[in-house]
Amino acid sequence: MTDTTTDTAGTVHVEGHILEPGGPDGAGEGPEAAGILASARGLVHPELRRAIETLPGSLRRVALYHFGWEHADGTPAAGTAGSTGKAIRPALVLTAARALGGDPAEAVRAAAAVELVHNFTLLHDDVMDRDTTRRHRPTAWTVFGDADAILTGDALQALAQRMLAEDPHPGAPAAAARLATCVMELCAGQHADCDLERRGPDEVTLDECLAMAEAKTGALLGCACALGAVYAGADPDDVDSLDGFGREAGLAFQLIDDVIGIWGDPHRTGKPAGADLAARKKSLPVVAALASGTPAAAELAELYDSPPPGGAAGAAEHAARAARAVERAGGRDWAQAHAADRMSRAIGQLAVAVPDPEAAGGLLALAEFVTRRTY
Amino acid sequence: MTDTTTDTAGTVHVEGHILEPGGPDGAGEGPEAAGILASARGLVHPELRRAIETLPGSLRRVALYHFGWEHADGTPAAGTAGSTGKAIRPALVLTAARALGGDPAEAVRAAAAVELVHNFTLLHDDVMDRDTTRRHRPTAWTVFGDADAILTGDALQALAQRMLAEDPHPGAPAAAARLATCVMELCAGQHADCDLERRGPDEVTLDECLAMAEAKTGALLGCACALGAVYAGADPDDVDSLDGFGREAGLAFQLIDDVIGIWGDPHRTGKPAGADLAARKKSLPVVAALASGTPAAAELAELYDSPPPGGAAGAAEHAARAARAVERAGGRDWAQAHAADRMSRAIGQLAVAVPDPEAAGGLLALAEFVTRRTY
Repeated sequence: MTDTTTDTAGTVHVEGHILEPGGPDGAGEGPEAAGILASARGLVHPELRRAIETLPGSLRRVALYHFGWEHADGTPAAGTAGSTGKAIRPALVLTAARALGGDPAEAVRAAAAVELVHNFTLLHDDVMDRDTTRRHRPTAWTVFGDADAILTGDALQALAQRMLAEDPHPGAPAAAARLATCVMELCAGQHADCDLERRGPDEVTLDECLAMAEAKTGALLGCACALGAVYAGADPDDVDSLDGFGREAGLAFQLIDDVIGIWGDPHRTGKPAGADLAARKKSLPVVAALASGTPAAAELAELYDSPPPGGAAGAAEHAARAARAVERAGGRDWAQAHAADRMSRAIGQLAVAVPDPEAAGGLLALAEFVTRRTY
Repeated sequence: MTDTTTDTAGTVHVEGHILEPGGPDGAGEGPEAAGILASARGLVHPELRRAIETLPGSLRRVALYHFGWEHADGTPAAGTAGSTGKAIRPALVLTAARALGGDPAEAVRAAAAVELVHNFTLLHDDVMDRDTTRRHRPTAWTVFGDADAILTGDALQALAQRMLAEDPHPGAPAAAARLATCVMELCAGQHADCDLERRGPDEVTLDECLAMAEAKTGALLGCACALGAVYAGADPDDVDSLDGFGREAGLAFQLIDDVIGIWGDPHRTGKPAGADLAARKKSLPVVAALASGTPAAAELAELYDSPPPGGAAGAAEHAARAARAVERAGGRDWAQAHAADRMSRAIGQLAVAVPDPEAAGGLLALAEFVTRRTY
């Protein structure tokens, strides 16, 4: 098992190799991850774009906006990695296929299908969560209304499944079934997320939050890796190991993302400092802090129960106090240690299916990339 | 081509054979259609129930409620045809398979998949349209909230596709692709419906309304028939003819449904008399009346533009005046004649693929059943 640690800046170290911090804009993503992601975008985005062009006009417009290829008024947009997404999930599909001896070029439709499912869930989650910003742009429902955002999400799920149903590759039916099962888990994860947000801070356990994060974030990263393995013709045990690798790396990613949501640099995250705390989000470091039984936990619970103070300065001071309480209660240390633990488990799962370190290199680079974001 | 007419009571007559009127509860549905529907329910409902039991618990509860198998509190409910639906679409799949020489028992998963897609769209449409009643019960979103209704719909679409992806039948991939394409058309139809409802009565053309009804109602009835043909191993032209049959019968059904929405007996429809007019719905008879250029059309436009009168008696009188105006403008006659025309076209399409009247009998009985509802 490879040794993995997380330092106090949230950087995950694998095999003692410290990578430069990478931001959400993809800067400093490390030469290997950068190359894999750019290559995945080059293969998958044209396939995605072609598929979306087949949608009925009314929904195509919403989809082209959501993917960052058009502005709200229908004029062409740049469609950069910043607005269309970095293609981490498609890159995992293609890289997993290669790691297991398959030809990534044969798995492009599966990679595009995973990206379509990811974007269908983003469209729907933004409606339910009333989130107004996605990839630095107004969310689709704020531009086109709830109904069109819901319908376009529905159509993207259908498009993903049609892409696999029409793929003559022998792995396509198993991939379609696995992707459909993953959608059900993603839906259950979003349900759990809505449910946890409705409850009081003392009515939520850390196990519930971890299970929610696994369903909402880990499941699709796991499915992406599993689909690559299916397309490489891997045996079922190796497919499951790849799923486990993606799931554990996904949880490590979520833990680091939650740390960034509290202590992230506003210039890098694009959100005000402490935004997750101001929104009273029950993110993993917060719930770990609340469960610590420390005096700081009691202070944090009181801050989360008290009404938000008026004025921007009051709200910022309130969020800063909450951040200090999470830190004193050990929430930040726990999240970083737990992220390192999850990365270790991910690497262990990968080693079962892909013992050759060279063959595993691409997947490791991607896993490091998603958990290496700093703040 | 078989001769089809519609009398003034809205009953469609095929080959001079007048069937007893059937209500939405399935009473008087004619011996052949009754038998086909009961047999389809017997084959498909256990498959559906088994599939829904595999959903994650939080979504399973919403699905079991929506299908009428559980009450809102999770206690078992009767799950009658009245609450679970009459299974017209699954019956079309199985009957089309038989008509083209296939074994209906082999098409049960395809039939269940079509019913899952139908119910996914009902869950989502009810959220968008803010409809509060479905099959005589409160809609899922009114009981569980918007998010759970949306997520359960998403999961039902995934379940439908998984059912086909796991079906070893050689027709399954083509059926999955066709069903996914149909979902996109259904979404475009719902988009058009929302869009038409937002416009003024003079800003909507009859062609737009017919295209919307074809996408929203005809597409899935056509897809059901096409899937049966695919599972029977029919050649592509026959599959397309079956699709056309279902589409045309679906439009005939929608026209009759719209007539019932205006002049239906409240005791049979479960809705107050003239409910569609009170809601200012731009149903097909209304839009035909508005487009007639008659004095009654101008009166109707004025009634649709004027604010709803206060009090139940005032609203009822207002709706009754609108109903008389639609009738004087020829909207009722047009809808009945156009329904008969669509039924003729449906029968023509069916005769291309299934020239033997005996083999076509089951599909004809179902088409008569869905367009035979009176009021």
